[in-house]
Amino acid sequence: MGASLPLALDAMGGDNAPGEIIAGARGAVDELGVRVTLVGQPERITAAPESEGMNLGDTALGGPASEGISVHPASEVIAMDADGARAVRRMKDSSLVRAAELVRDGKASAMISAGNTGATVASALLRMGRIKGVSRPAVATPIPVPGSTPTVLLDAGAMADCQPSWLAQFAQMGSVYATKRFGIDEPRVGLLSIGEEASKGNQLTKEAHARLVETPGINFIGNVEGRDIMTDGVDVVVTDGFTGNVVLKTLEGGLKAMVAAVLEALASEPQTLGLLAPLATQMDPDTYGGAMLLGVDGVCIISHGSSGRQAVVNAMRVARDMVEADLVGALAARITPEPTSRS
Amino acid sequence: MGASLPLALDAMGGDNAPGEIIAGARGAVDELGVRVTLVGQPERITAAPESEGMNLGDTALGGPASEGISVHPASEVIAMDADGARAVRRMKDSSLVRAAELVRDGKASAMISAGNTGATVASALLRMGRIKGVSRPAVATPIPVPGSTPTVLLDAGAMADCQPSWLAQFAQMGSVYATKRFGIDEPRVGLLSIGEEASKGNQLTKEAHARLVETPGINFIGNVEGRDIMTDGVDVVVTDGFTGNVVLKTLEGGLKAMVAAVLEALASEPQTLGLLAPLATQMDPDTYGGAMLLGVDGVCIISHGSSGRQAVVNAMRVARDMVEADLVGALAARITPEPTSRS
Repeated sequence: MGASLPLALDAMGGDNAPGEIIAGARGAVDELGVRVTLVGQPERITAAPESEGMNLGDTALGGPASEGISVHPASEVIAMDADGARAVRRMKDSSLVRAAELVRDGKASAMISAGNTGATVASALLRMGRIKGVSRPAVATPIPVPGSTPTVLLDAGAMADCQPSWLAQFAQMGSVYATKRFGIDEPRVGLLSIGEEASKGNQLTKEAHARLVETPGINFIGNVEGRDIMTDGVDVVVTDGFTGNVVLKTLEGGLKAMVAAVLEALASEPQTLGLLAPLATQMDPDTYGGAMLLGVDGVCIISHGSSGRQAVVNAMRVARDMVEADLVGALAARITPEPTSRS
Repeated sequence: MGASLPLALDAMGGDNAPGEIIAGARGAVDELGVRVTLVGQPERITAAPESEGMNLGDTALGGPASEGISVHPASEVIAMDADGARAVRRMKDSSLVRAAELVRDGKASAMISAGNTGATVASALLRMGRIKGVSRPAVATPIPVPGSTPTVLLDAGAMADCQPSWLAQFAQMGSVYATKRFGIDEPRVGLLSIGEEASKGNQLTKEAHARLVETPGINFIGNVEGRDIMTDGVDVVVTDGFTGNVVLKTLEGGLKAMVAAVLEALASEPQTLGLLAPLATQMDPDTYGGAMLLGVDGVCIISHGSSGRQAVVNAMRVARDMVEADLVGALAARITPEPTSRS
């Protein structure tokens, strides 16, 4: 039922908006058979070369490629580097806020944006609200693991300063997500720290460890270290949003530097490029369709700011799959509200 | 003057102790012309095949390879996974504590260990003491950057929970180290955070940012992100010991996974291995001789636990160089004591 609703796609968010976003919408219609509501400034959407041949009224009547695509107008655009929470409070007719409202109002099954992460989190949180019992939402990002299923890292940037109890809920949410998204039964949950013993870490991880041991509905394997993330030794890695975001961007930068250096070293052997292509695809963050905001009352996908057409299509696929799998209902069923909840 | 003293090498620390450590000591004598005091259990040092032909009395009288090597007995060994601070307080005749005492007592110019990092930090801190004005020491680790000088990351694990003012001192110490060690004039210092704006980050980084702006003697370029660490856009990256250690191990694991995947993909083209060898050497943490504990009143090098002979030789080279460059004196001259110092 929910899957038959259109997916609300922020046409204005991302380094390549609106062109690549529109191209992604058309790709999603063609490849996935979904309907898409492009949310944004109609004049900029119309002017994009990628919109050629599309009927951009509220109903989709264009050629075959644009069938299933409609436009929902929003006059404002939240910049990539804006203060997310503040922008969302001020820009009520922004594409991000309107996209979240479509989900809240039952007019779209999910929202997807390659725009400002903080503003996406704030839009979803303020307009959709939280799942009952959830203290704080978390961004869950799949980290590619060569030869294995990805490791789900959360929080990857929603909440910079976290309470220990929130990490226990992140563990529950990340477990549900790893199962629904990657088919992992009883995913192994690790707490990111700087030593395997429960006594190792900072104040936050020491207290979080004690809570995780007692958290129902998870398979807690104890502390893990940074070097475990890209192995098949753990399925869900729980941390605060500051550390998670640093880890994500450190890996991104490290792997990018490494790939560039490898390609330079192999410049005299161009035939090797073909051998490395499958690996490059597996390690490309776009392959997994971006991150997911867990804990809000609706499906919300956060794509990489650099998303191009294929990344948008992949994000739409994840959105559709998570709607069909009723991820939000499964999260609501698993979460243990905090005894002294601040919600 | 200091350089003519022997270097105190913890013979018992590390995954490959004492064999590879002894081999490293002999290598350092041969290649660097330094004198070495092996600190540890004489019977285990004697029994190691790597000691063959060495005179293991307190004076070195063996064959050419062992000339310049003496043994300083210590009956206890702190395990790799022991609680460092507690072990140091209890095991007063451990190789780590004795090595730190040799430096304190002017009988060695530096201490080097591939053992328990926490115990190495605690030994140096408790036996050598801090440089006057330093609130807390920090582990400074060079992160390889393909095609450029390494980025100095600190604190990489000495203090899991940090005060903002400590990070300002880390910036001063890291700057001095980057200059003395890698010849970088006015090294650019970045604060590791999750956005470039001063307002982005967690509570610690927001407060630390405000202090760094006012810290004398550094070239502060503002916040940097994880993706900047392995680029030539920054020379010194300052963070708390928890985040720094997570970053270090995340990069280690990520690059290891990537290298394994690249080698597997290229298995059918063995001639490419030779092309990748220089890169592998540059990215190998052993190349830089490990990390350095800054802020204690003496030179203290922390080698990777997996150190083999060559890594030990490299660590000894760094120790000798930093003694000759009077790093400790330069740090003492640069540090600004905290107004409300807890020291």
